[in-house]
Amino acid sequence: ELEKRRQAVMMAMTKTNPNSVMILFSAEPRLYTNDVDYVFRQENNLYYLTMLKKAGATLVLIPGNRETPEILFLPKRDPRNETWNGKMYSREEASLVSGVKTVFDAEDFTPFIAALRAGKAFEKVKGMTTIYQSAPTPAKLYLLQPVGSDGREWAQEIAFADTWKNQANFKVENAQFIFWDLRLIKSPFEIKILQHAIDITTEAFGRSMAVAGRSKMEYEVQAEVEYTFRRRNADFWGYPSIVGCGPNATTLHYEESQGAVKPGDLLLMDVGAEYDHYTADVTRTFPINGKFSKEQAEVYQIVYDAQEAVARATKPGANFQDVNAAAVKVINDGLFKLGLITDKNSKQYRIWFMHGTSHWLGMNVHDVGASNNRFKPGNVFTNEPGIYIREDALLNLQKTPENEKFIAAVRPAFEKYKNIGVRIEDDLLVTETGCEWLTKNLPRTIDDIENMIAGAKQELPANEDSFLIKPKMPNLLDERGFNF
Amino acid sequence: ELEKRRQAVMMAMTKTNPNSVMILFSAEPRLYTNDVDYVFRQENNLYYLTMLKKAGATLVLIPGNRETPEILFLPKRDPRNETWNGKMYSREEASLVSGVKTVFDAEDFTPFIAALRAGKAFEKVKGMTTIYQSAPTPAKLYLLQPVGSDGREWAQEIAFADTWKNQANFKVENAQFIFWDLRLIKSPFEIKILQHAIDITTEAFGRSMAVAGRSKMEYEVQAEVEYTFRRRNADFWGYPSIVGCGPNATTLHYEESQGAVKPGDLLLMDVGAEYDHYTADVTRTFPINGKFSKEQAEVYQIVYDAQEAVARATKPGANFQDVNAAAVKVINDGLFKLGLITDKNSKQYRIWFMHGTSHWLGMNVHDVGASNNRFKPGNVFTNEPGIYIREDALLNLQKTPENEKFIAAVRPAFEKYKNIGVRIEDDLLVTETGCEWLTKNLPRTIDDIENMIAGAKQELPANEDSFLIKPKMPNLLDERGFNF
Repeated sequence: ELEKRRQAVMMAMTKTNPNSVMILFSAEPRLYTNDVDYVFRQENNLYYLTMLKKAGATLVLIPGNRETPEILFLPKRDPRNETWNGKMYSREEASLVSGVKTVFDAEDFTPFIAALRAGKAFEKVKGMTTIYQSAPTPAKLYLLQPVGSDGREWAQEIAFADTWKNQANFKVENAQFIFWDLRLIKSPFEIKILQHAIDITTEAFGRSMAVAGRSKMEYEVQAEVEYTFRRRNADFWGYPSIVGCGPNATTLHYEESQGAVKPGDLLLMDVGAEYDHYTADVTRTFPINGKFSKEQAEVYQIVYDAQEAVARATKPGANFQDVNAAAVKVINDGLFKLGLITDKNSKQYRIWFMHGTSHWLGMNVHDVGASNNRFKPGNVFTNEPGIYIREDALLNLQKTPENEKFIAAVRPAFEKYKNIGVRIEDDLLVTETGCEWLTKNLPRTIDDIENMIAGAKQELPANEDSFLIKPKMPNLLDERGFNF
Repeated sequence: ELEKRRQAVMMAMTKTNPNSVMILFSAEPRLYTNDVDYVFRQENNLYYLTMLKKAGATLVLIPGNRETPEILFLPKRDPRNETWNGKMYSREEASLVSGVKTVFDAEDFTPFIAALRAGKAFEKVKGMTTIYQSAPTPAKLYLLQPVGSDGREWAQEIAFADTWKNQANFKVENAQFIFWDLRLIKSPFEIKILQHAIDITTEAFGRSMAVAGRSKMEYEVQAEVEYTFRRRNADFWGYPSIVGCGPNATTLHYEESQGAVKPGDLLLMDVGAEYDHYTADVTRTFPINGKFSKEQAEVYQIVYDAQEAVARATKPGANFQDVNAAAVKVINDGLFKLGLITDKNSKQYRIWFMHGTSHWLGMNVHDVGASNNRFKPGNVFTNEPGIYIREDALLNLQKTPENEKFIAAVRPAFEKYKNIGVRIEDDLLVTETGCEWLTKNLPRTIDDIENMIAGAKQELPANEDSFLIKPKMPNLLDERGFNF
């Protein structure tokens, strides 16, 4: 699998210039505070080609160099470091995991680069001389470079690219686009890993839906989610968990989990386990007490129907615009019926459905790839329409006569559905004929959700905490009455 | 409390120059991958003075400016941003939380700085003119700057300090040292928060010790820890959890949790909940099957006795060298008795006890403050001796005749105790007369640990998972037999 991926990358590299070189660095550890880092996560593209999880490795691809087209630079093992931080890769292990046969010490990287710059042979890499000295035009040096405005992920790559600016024999190209094309089509092996991340997420939902009714705070439900992720050995999450009850469900990326869980309210959970670098991205919205109210069910059903429309519109050749249009049609009709919009042929629906229906899914939750690509078998994307009756939505409209008329017209419906937020999100795999719901094991219809919660409640252990030393839960208020 | 802290900072600032200014920025969000960030954590010193948890706030202290000695710059609220990411602070909220009365928009920061540079009055800050135009010598501009070699935490502060290099009216000073002194002495309010973090950690240990016996993998036990942290609304951890079984217990910062949990082995858990920026730091080492073997108990008892010696040596006026010496004496004697060293008056013990006994504890797990400070009431530090019989320890000794003699002499004991790793870590508060064990609720003697595990096992719910949709746990092996 990895060999195949590297072959595909090298093929793309040599399409325009046979003497191209690609250099991929490991991710840099990110600081938490002082001398503590966040848990390390490998750079996706390096991982895609090597499956090496640890920091410090650098991969160099030189497709034109027949004897050593693939070179891995690896930090030397060091007993003191291993005593403190655990095992480092040996050359043999790294080679076995990645399939890359040529492994050099990381300290060889600087002389290697110097040789590359000088167009000379690096003594350890046979055959490089002939390639670079005979190149008539500058070869391409592929480095990962930012596409948008956020350069934080590629700080070292940007700095490294800078050092090649006045170099005659190499011209820096952005390596990202090669990976965009490849990573957009998932192999059966990738689907298997992604399905596993989704299965763990499904279990997490089951646990959460069962205990939500006896939880007092959102973070208690979030604990059930992340417990499942860790217990099933997920990397952890692919994005911070969103667990919002009642009005909090109307904030799209609500990450605080500090609200109360109230019977009668809906709980919106948008969570995804990441397993081996592939992340699920799943949302369910369900009633805390196990029964949808009439108003909640009405909103829910529209979102559900929009999802169905998206799935029907999904097939090779369609694109995000098509599926979004399918969802918008259903939501437009539905909102009109509820009285929340007055004009189906306007953008009014954007007040209550303010995000897109889909994004690519894979090693990133918003995975790489052009958003105007037409679907091909092997694409995976999310199907996530939503309706959010935000309490401040009407207040935030511009004060125009037109808007005031609109506000007056939808006011009764607004009061009826206010603070209901519903999103349903599933992960679709494009097939030859349509799509497969990778999230199909998780209940989604109103009936299935109500039945599942009813069943789970009966089986919950009654007294799971009796054996614990419990924290005293002191009154953590300061003199101003703030809770910490 | 916060007002008191700011007063203390301003007092320290004006000691050397009455016209000093301090500027504290919020932490920068850290990138996870692509457009996903790790969970945001506020910069400690800004938090220490404001308790503002959200990104974007900047605090300016100008003690010489009587009317507005404290100014908070805050991003403007924005409905679109709030729809996506949740509530931002209003000026009133930020002012209420922090106690800072003067709040400006973040966009005023640039003109404010320009005025400061020019030694002119910033129109919104009355009285500034008189201060800066009458200053005979350069005033001090306090910014947080790195002390060690790792500048990642202070990247924006370093860049900002650079812009003041050729400025005649201000000279940049490192603000850290002011905070080092203040944060070293914990107030009763700080102790209350820290105690709460420790109590949550205590509950996490209880849960873990109860289920370890029926767990198969280290990460399953880690899941119990982090479940408790989240469920009790900890920020989360103060440092990545260390859960190592058998030989893995001999790696000091083992964070992978990928090993099997085997009856008969010891499990070393070094974990700490962080609550409201204060982190616990606690280690227990306990037998998976609930009963220490003779060899395990022998090693454990030495470490336990070393901890007792540390506590006895703790009192105002003592320092880390004193308590470390007390621990080393016990461990030296103990290792000699076990036959693991041949000379009590040498550094041989460093082969089996290779770290220090103590570090400051607070808003960082390795908290700020000079390590040679003499203890004062209100200091909090860890008491964490350990013995680690690493399998490769003798192999990694330099090949000298002396070492070969040593190896031959300790070989029998080494074979007997090999792969046992024991650390016990408690958090001590220095009092007027000695110390208080903040971690006293968590069993620590051999008997107490064995009794606790026996009791907890009986009360565990038998079938906690019956209600779940369980992942299929497919065989996630690639063609080379690697498990993901």
